[in-house]
Amino acid sequence: MLTQVTLEDIPAIAIGAGILGTGAGGSPYQDSLHLRAVLREAGPQAVMSPDDLADDATVAAAGFIGAPIASIEKMQEGTELLRGIRLLEKHIGRQLDAVAIAEIGGGNAIGPLIAGKQAGIPTLDGDGMGRAFPELQMTSFLFNCDVSVAPFVMVDAGENSVVFPHTKDALWAERLARVQATSMGATAGLVGVAMTGKQFRESCIPYTLTLAHALGNEVLESQKRGVADIPQVIAAMLSGKVLFRGKLTDVNRRIVTGFARGTLTMAGFGDAGDTLFIEFQNEFLIAYLNDEVVATVPDLICIVDLETGEPISTELLRYGMRVAVLGAPAPTGLKTKTALNYVGPQAFGYDVPFQPMAGGSIGIKLTI
Amino acid sequence: MLTQVTLEDIPAIAIGAGILGTGAGGSPYQDSLHLRAVLREAGPQAVMSPDDLADDATVAAAGFIGAPIASIEKMQEGTELLRGIRLLEKHIGRQLDAVAIAEIGGGNAIGPLIAGKQAGIPTLDGDGMGRAFPELQMTSFLFNCDVSVAPFVMVDAGENSVVFPHTKDALWAERLARVQATSMGATAGLVGVAMTGKQFRESCIPYTLTLAHALGNEVLESQKRGVADIPQVIAAMLSGKVLFRGKLTDVNRRIVTGFARGTLTMAGFGDAGDTLFIEFQNEFLIAYLNDEVVATVPDLICIVDLETGEPISTELLRYGMRVAVLGAPAPTGLKTKTALNYVGPQAFGYDVPFQPMAGGSIGIKLTI
Repeated sequence: MLTQVTLEDIPAIAIGAGILGTGAGGSPYQDSLHLRAVLREAGPQAVMSPDDLADDATVAAAGFIGAPIASIEKMQEGTELLRGIRLLEKHIGRQLDAVAIAEIGGGNAIGPLIAGKQAGIPTLDGDGMGRAFPELQMTSFLFNCDVSVAPFVMVDAGENSVVFPHTKDALWAERLARVQATSMGATAGLVGVAMTGKQFRESCIPYTLTLAHALGNEVLESQKRGVADIPQVIAAMLSGKVLFRGKLTDVNRRIVTGFARGTLTMAGFGDAGDTLFIEFQNEFLIAYLNDEVVATVPDLICIVDLETGEPISTELLRYGMRVAVLGAPAPTGLKTKTALNYVGPQAFGYDVPFQPMAGGSIGIKLTI
Repeated sequence: MLTQVTLEDIPAIAIGAGILGTGAGGSPYQDSLHLRAVLREAGPQAVMSPDDLADDATVAAAGFIGAPIASIEKMQEGTELLRGIRLLEKHIGRQLDAVAIAEIGGGNAIGPLIAGKQAGIPTLDGDGMGRAFPELQMTSFLFNCDVSVAPFVMVDAGENSVVFPHTKDALWAERLARVQATSMGATAGLVGVAMTGKQFRESCIPYTLTLAHALGNEVLESQKRGVADIPQVIAAMLSGKVLFRGKLTDVNRRIVTGFARGTLTMAGFGDAGDTLFIEFQNEFLIAYLNDEVVATVPDLICIVDLETGEPISTELLRYGMRVAVLGAPAPTGLKTKTALNYVGPQAFGYDVPFQPMAGGSIGIKLTI
């Protein structure tokens, strides 16, 4: 298990988080550079296992909310999540003992490492999504635990801050926070879901920082060793499979209400004439192979470069790219009946039942 | 001066506030019914003169933010401003000694009477606009005083609430609060601009509740006495004049970013063929008589029914109505160089200089 993050760990975490991002969660590139600068100055950041967290500890989740594409064009100020932690602490009248990762997928894996270091508290090895999802209510902290999203806080890159002391429910929190993020420049830091150590342990998707790190390390090692089929290595690590290898023939992407929505079409290599079609809303949500559903959210659909195995996010996809599409079974915590109400295909408006992929669930073996 | 508001005072305040609303500020009708119910149960609400307020008292302004038209279709829950007061008190760690009226124009004159009664504190005889304006930064508390709009709070008709502990400036506060109000159902209660008694006294537009009451009383008395030209009576009370009498021949109204924007055209009676043209953004902002500018914001442009003298707000105007258009000089506090940066014609995007109307300023004579 990962006990700290050093400068050397950053490239692996960025690649692993990118793969688990299933197309979104923000590009880890700028966050990686920022984490590098912070750790070079202040030394490694401590990582705490959920198992080592006291039952009565106070923790909260941190991450950026907004359109992933904005994070490419708009630099963070750099202390958004730290200022969010301090504002939440002031509002609840208690200091946080550790900070949790809201979503392990994409750049959001890295922000809580930076903020934890800045705040002088460890970052927890576990998150609320086990991948990336676009909306606040889609977090296991909320649907696997009797805890409220509010109070939560938002801060922008400038001097604006907001506290939400109470919202009717998580859907209202999402609605109110979304327009606030849009007005704050399409991206803002959010810290919330204040919970006890026990609540975190019982509701989180555990060890996902360790998983991202191990996954990225394996990709980097495979590149060094000249492994021929890196996508297959990744799929095996995720207890999943390579769904398709091919070339992007169409990218239909538009920004709707702050989200990147659209479809992808790929043509397979060889003479078989196979076609893969993917529907996405920030994240890749449903994959059809020759019109047959082969993967559905919350199972992971990841697109990686065919040669290097490195992840390609929704906003960077373009015609002609040669990619592999991987499918991997979602963590157990996302597949309960309650969880599927929030993160199943219907929650995204698709009239398709969840078709769980064989292979169990992704997750890190406890022997690592 | 008004020292309390009883059941008998309500119709007069509603008419006077409607006239001072210059077309907006929300319809006083539903608020009047609500105030009636509250006072019938709990007795008169105390009104405090700014002169009687201790220098170190703590006060804040209350009002509804949103599209006026929404207030016609969407009932208030009834405790929005009370809950806002309590939330602000909790955030600043002090109780309010009195509640101020954010804007005297329209329904917003009445909410702080209801909330003051509910909270057990007096309502101040003075406001931040002396009329109605559409945006947060257009308040004399901010541009006539070195006080910050934040912290301020917003509450909706349900269970959602928001605290803004800090915003970069009043324009950012407006931007962030506006989208929040829109998401909260196009209207929300807002309580903020926490200030001392001294700050309130020095920055408010004074005695405007007394003015609204006296104005409405005069209209009602004139109706009883069968006065032939009630619009002229109102104009005289406001140190202004009747700009036009005529019939609405065109109403061009559309909802843009939460505001009612558009133009009005009126044809004069008689053979002269005079035309009055008004540009509005919620409030009536500029009046042209036969293409010549005859009134500019912040001076008041009010439209009243030709016979009864009762105010007609922007959302109720329609073809064929017979109306009088009044012009009245704005309160002194809105006409300083600084104030005009926030409430002059340019602040609304018009390339027209402020052309102050003769006659001094509206305001209540201290002998009332």
